[in-house]
Amino acid sequence: MSWKVSSQSVKDTDLLNEESLFFVGNGYIGVRGNFEESYGPSYPTIRGTYLNAFHDIIDIPYGEKLYGFPPTQQKMLNVIDSQTILVLLGEDQEKFTITEGELISYERHLHLDKGMSERVVHWKSPRGREVKLRFERVVSFVHRELFAIQVKVEPVNFADSITIVSTIDGDVTNFSDSNDPRVAGGEAKRLHTVEAAANDDYGYVINEAETSKLQTACLSYHQSDQSLNTIVNEKGSSIEFVHHYEGRAGETLTFSKWNIYVDTLRHGGSLLDQVQTLRERFNSITFEDLQQSQKNYMDTFWRKSDVEIDGDTYLQEGIRFNLFHLLQSVGRDKHSNISAKGLSGEGYEGHYFWDTEIYMFPVFLMTNPELAKQLLIYRYSILDNAKARAREMGHKQGALFPWRTISGDECSSFFPAGTAQYHISADIAYSYIQYVHATEDMHFVKEYGLEVLVETARLWMDMGHYTKDGQFLINNVTGPDEYTCVINNNYYTNAMVKHNLAWVARLAHRLQDENQRVYQQLAKKIGLKEEEIQQWEQAAEAVFLPYDEALGINPQDDSFLQKEVWDIENTPKENFPLLLNYHPLTLYRYQVCKQADTVLAHFLLEDEQSMDTIRQSYKYYEGITTHDSSLSTCIFSIMAAKLGEMDKAYNYFIETARLDLDNTHGNTKDGLHMANMGGTWMSIVFGFAGLRIKEDGLHLNPKMPSDWNRYAFHIQYRNQPIFVEVQNDKIKLALQEGEDIPIYVNEEVYTLSVGKAVEVRMS
Amino acid sequence: MSWKVSSQSVKDTDLLNEESLFFVGNGYIGVRGNFEESYGPSYPTIRGTYLNAFHDIIDIPYGEKLYGFPPTQQKMLNVIDSQTILVLLGEDQEKFTITEGELISYERHLHLDKGMSERVVHWKSPRGREVKLRFERVVSFVHRELFAIQVKVEPVNFADSITIVSTIDGDVTNFSDSNDPRVAGGEAKRLHTVEAAANDDYGYVINEAETSKLQTACLSYHQSDQSLNTIVNEKGSSIEFVHHYEGRAGETLTFSKWNIYVDTLRHGGSLLDQVQTLRERFNSITFEDLQQSQKNYMDTFWRKSDVEIDGDTYLQEGIRFNLFHLLQSVGRDKHSNISAKGLSGEGYEGHYFWDTEIYMFPVFLMTNPELAKQLLIYRYSILDNAKARAREMGHKQGALFPWRTISGDECSSFFPAGTAQYHISADIAYSYIQYVHATEDMHFVKEYGLEVLVETARLWMDMGHYTKDGQFLINNVTGPDEYTCVINNNYYTNAMVKHNLAWVARLAHRLQDENQRVYQQLAKKIGLKEEEIQQWEQAAEAVFLPYDEALGINPQDDSFLQKEVWDIENTPKENFPLLLNYHPLTLYRYQVCKQADTVLAHFLLEDEQSMDTIRQSYKYYEGITTHDSSLSTCIFSIMAAKLGEMDKAYNYFIETARLDLDNTHGNTKDGLHMANMGGTWMSIVFGFAGLRIKEDGLHLNPKMPSDWNRYAFHIQYRNQPIFVEVQNDKIKLALQEGEDIPIYVNEEVYTLSVGKAVEVRMS
Repeated sequence: MSWKVSSQSVKDTDLLNEESLFFVGNGYIGVRGNFEESYGPSYPTIRGTYLNAFHDIIDIPYGEKLYGFPPTQQKMLNVIDSQTILVLLGEDQEKFTITEGELISYERHLHLDKGMSERVVHWKSPRGREVKLRFERVVSFVHRELFAIQVKVEPVNFADSITIVSTIDGDVTNFSDSNDPRVAGGEAKRLHTVEAAANDDYGYVINEAETSKLQTACLSYHQSDQSLNTIVNEKGSSIEFVHHYEGRAGETLTFSKWNIYVDTLRHGGSLLDQVQTLRERFNSITFEDLQQSQKNYMDTFWRKSDVEIDGDTYLQEGIRFNLFHLLQSVGRDKHSNISAKGLSGEGYEGHYFWDTEIYMFPVFLMTNPELAKQLLIYRYSILDNAKARAREMGHKQGALFPWRTISGDECSSFFPAGTAQYHISADIAYSYIQYVHATEDMHFVKEYGLEVLVETARLWMDMGHYTKDGQFLINNVTGPDEYTCVINNNYYTNAMVKHNLAWVARLAHRLQDENQRVYQQLAKKIGLKEEEIQQWEQAAEAVFLPYDEALGINPQDDSFLQKEVWDIENTPKENFPLLLNYHPLTLYRYQVCKQADTVLAHFLLEDEQSMDTIRQSYKYYEGITTHDSSLSTCIFSIMAAKLGEMDKAYNYFIETARLDLDNTHGNTKDGLHMANMGGTWMSIVFGFAGLRIKEDGLHLNPKMPSDWNRYAFHIQYRNQPIFVEVQNDKIKLALQEGEDIPIYVNEEVYTLSVGKAVEVRMS
Repeated sequence: MSWKVSSQSVKDTDLLNEESLFFVGNGYIGVRGNFEESYGPSYPTIRGTYLNAFHDIIDIPYGEKLYGFPPTQQKMLNVIDSQTILVLLGEDQEKFTITEGELISYERHLHLDKGMSERVVHWKSPRGREVKLRFERVVSFVHRELFAIQVKVEPVNFADSITIVSTIDGDVTNFSDSNDPRVAGGEAKRLHTVEAAANDDYGYVINEAETSKLQTACLSYHQSDQSLNTIVNEKGSSIEFVHHYEGRAGETLTFSKWNIYVDTLRHGGSLLDQVQTLRERFNSITFEDLQQSQKNYMDTFWRKSDVEIDGDTYLQEGIRFNLFHLLQSVGRDKHSNISAKGLSGEGYEGHYFWDTEIYMFPVFLMTNPELAKQLLIYRYSILDNAKARAREMGHKQGALFPWRTISGDECSSFFPAGTAQYHISADIAYSYIQYVHATEDMHFVKEYGLEVLVETARLWMDMGHYTKDGQFLINNVTGPDEYTCVINNNYYTNAMVKHNLAWVARLAHRLQDENQRVYQQLAKKIGLKEEEIQQWEQAAEAVFLPYDEALGINPQDDSFLQKEVWDIENTPKENFPLLLNYHPLTLYRYQVCKQADTVLAHFLLEDEQSMDTIRQSYKYYEGITTHDSSLSTCIFSIMAAKLGEMDKAYNYFIETARLDLDNTHGNTKDGLHMANMGGTWMSIVFGFAGLRIKEDGLHLNPKMPSDWNRYAFHIQYRNQPIFVEVQNDKIKLALQEGEDIPIYVNEEVYTLSVGKAVEVRMS
């Protein structure tokens, strides 16, 4: 049960959400769970196939455009559609469609263990033909460019012919809804077909984006266990294959469609050559082969990443579903990252945000560090853009990473909740530092890490300034909470900056200690001098962290506490999320948080404050947080667990784990909330198990939600797999291979050795 | 000399600016100083005719549109063009154009005393014809709908025919420059012709705006002292009259074109009926009649409004020029106000801002109070829009006036420097209170004033809140200075709010005392209770006004002084205005002011702080103000005068008085800086003469700039004309009619009686 997510609903709104929920992808290609044959004409649909980072450049419109407002943004494109397969029954070609005739049975599954989706239909046509159909889809984790669909057609009560129409369609548009700021980008038609052709074996379409001039090609070919009569129709920007099968009573037709995607971001030379070469390579693969290789890949993934929750299939399903979609969405090259909606939909234009570093990177860091590293390298690859943006924003030095981007340039048009979120640069620095803690990969520090940390540190030195009494202030930023914008000394930002400044200095010195010569070369390359390092150390010490004596909390910013408290309790339910019902100025005027802000800082940097301050702050902010952002409940769950409030932790976790499966935010149709999916994992591992990655090693402070008996998960730490099992009142840690490592449980240190599990009673 | 502004330049850039400088208008119609015959094809031009408040509604584009962002804005339209008159010489119809042939002499004038513009040309055509031309333009102050042009053509060395082509053109567009946020509105073509026809006597065009559906009509007819042969060509949306005159040696042809404009905002019924009726009414008026009535009107105006500066024609020209353009631009009905550029150009889309209340209203209040009253009635007419906007902005009560508007709805798309400038509501309240001080018109208070003051007061009560220790705070606003946005307790805003709250209570009680019955009716209508008045009084006392002990100044806002000081001195000259060269976030991070903010508050409410605080503040803000806004130098001039720094006052005044004449801001082509023009008058009357309008009467503290010997001006106070003359070391005040009034000079009170001038030595 808990290895698949299923649905039997054919309600139009459910189907629309399921297009996101049942999407299949491999970090490069993402295909929404549309029906091959479409729905009935009145059903809403967002038909989509995406290639990670494949985008056009569109103008950003402004009523009043001021200096430094980005003139354009990147937009992830819906690419050539290869999903369409129509099944026509009999000589009169009755078209299979579930909205007509009689649906005898229907179910669809997302197989988390097999890495594929499946749809099983038993249907009776208006003219009485009964047929069983099975659609299976695989986007290969092994063959990056490959997306295959298999259809089995089993005639139940008829023996005449079956026609299968398979299309490659280059005439595609993006989705746009001008009433919702999250998908209102407009400019829907951006891809234009430059070539479309076919022969008896395959067809292909090559499309080009209007402004970026990026090209993508899709080549499709077919296999079948029966001999088919094929007619190819070239129709402008689409290619249609009409396969005719002279049916025999009782025989099932198995038909598969193989679609190869390439693009000019990754694939040099002629795209046509590329797809043809790949076709030759893939041609001998059968659908069973593909399924087997996919299963093997998934086995490895789950061995390293699975989280088990005993006795709650509902949540077990949630956590595995989320991990699977993270795996399907994570970019695997320097061009790509994980967009806010992964490859499941078009919300937020396919942009990459801080969501990656704070909510998703940790999952990969602790399960698949190679994928985590790739995410860091992506940021390194846009460092020059970030430096240029810092100059444009008036900074004499340093790098300011874009709040939202694909190819590295800032795409946020509303700066108070965009560019002003300077913390993204500190978040990226934080992820680099976490990577070092978890992997001890000093080679990476030399190749990529130090340079990024240096450039972000330089930004802070230009951004902040000292008061007369020696405090280092950072004015004029927006923290994670978008209901309070452009304020001074945001606790979150300042704490993260302090961490950035302290660690760039420590890592520079560590690199220096390890290899003076290598360090000198690097220091020369990036213009790094010892006195600059000392300035960072000094500033790190001096960073002002707001604290309110009376309340015993860290205020979110300098003026946060002087505002009125929003009356959440008496705000009508239909007025949430507040951002869709109140002007920003209205929200800014009150103490009300969209999401964890100071509380998030207390999670990420827990040693910065006393438990009392952390506890008081948690209580305070809990009362004024609406969790209108999907990035919030997981953090409150983690911190509730830390504070021993297990019921709260559990309730927040439930909200987190099933957010998309239950469409609690009402916009799952636009794509899955990927950060929240990472948050689910974090709620268990960082929350319930109390894991922290620190300089001196792994720390665990496990707790058990009252409804559970056991939970367990796999992690990778310094290249060594560890299995963590929390059962009843004990935690059991097993090192599965590698050298002995120290580990802290409830702040006491133990040594983990292979074959010698450590068992500790929970505190 | 000083009653006209002249130019002899035919440089293309000068001509473009002169289109604004030489515009003629009457508060309803405004016609730019384009050449009737146009320039050469390579000359830039913004050909424009405007009707005050006549607008279309256009979409505001947003990259990310949040709740409460105005979906549309109003845009003042360039209406039907009636300027075109071509002069063709001889049977071969050589076209007169100054960019070909030989320009023997050329000059143009704006006659400030006659209320008209004039262009005198002596020209030799490429084929050797020599001709003298004189173009005169009047937009009538007496006949609202009338704009007339007279052309005199005097052949010098030829006797063959002259052809005059006169056009009414309905195919008009607005100007747009996407590179300049101040004129980037786009959507240039919004007016469409619905009817265009002609007979032998006249032609007309009726146009309709695309979305607002407002219509305007222009009817043109002609007069001449010679008999002409006329052919009428109807060309779609334009009408062309070709007038042929068989010339005789030495005879001058005098030709006039009469254009009547109406629109559906003001003119009910059929527009065609309206223009035809008006034509019948105007038909017997000769151009000489028109000039005479215009001269009479101007005589009256100058008698009430003239400012004399002895010994400086340069500045004398500046001040009269400014007063004249204010008169030409001020709206005279409830639909219209004074747009930022008056009726001289399209900058800022023809919107009305706070500029009216703080920079232009005072001029009319003290010279032509009936026009001032009209400006207040305009605000009253949009009170319902302001109440609706307050609700949209999350306020349970009160009225929030739009930052920029024509028909009453908010048009600002960038809220940090738009809607967040809540002070506009207090500015409007201030102008109402000033009106009462200057006129004692309690009837007006009952009809309009109290309701506006009550609704703005209600806004403040909802907007602000009390701290535990009883201070009334107003968070989250932007003051006048747009280089620091969305901050807490802006001194200017808070001081103006305090004034609003205190005076609404006082005027309510005064009304109550004067007539209990009338008051009760009004109180019932607007739901006013005594306890609400007490709350206002209490809040007025409690309003927090930031003060810094160490510096002895009023900080601009709570966090202003904790920011770094911008290095104005080392900022490259070409980087000003800063807003065109730095991102808002960059500017917000520093102590740097676009314009007078706290200093403006110290002018408007001088009794709120000690002279020491005012002086220290002036010094402080002077050092960090760039005067990138044209609303700044006049205020610094006034305050320098108050502080006795006469050289500074004089230098700021010079910058103010000649801003457009010398195009010091580089964008005079887009229209005149009307607020600055008001500021010129204020610099003399409020600055040098130290006039203040207070509850107890007029106060004067006259000073003399060192370069001057004498200046004098006329004011109206409580319906009585006073002539003020400052000469050498004396001020002389003469009441020209009416009852005795008390007047304060250097804080000593004198009684003014008709025929008995008061002379006081300057302090």
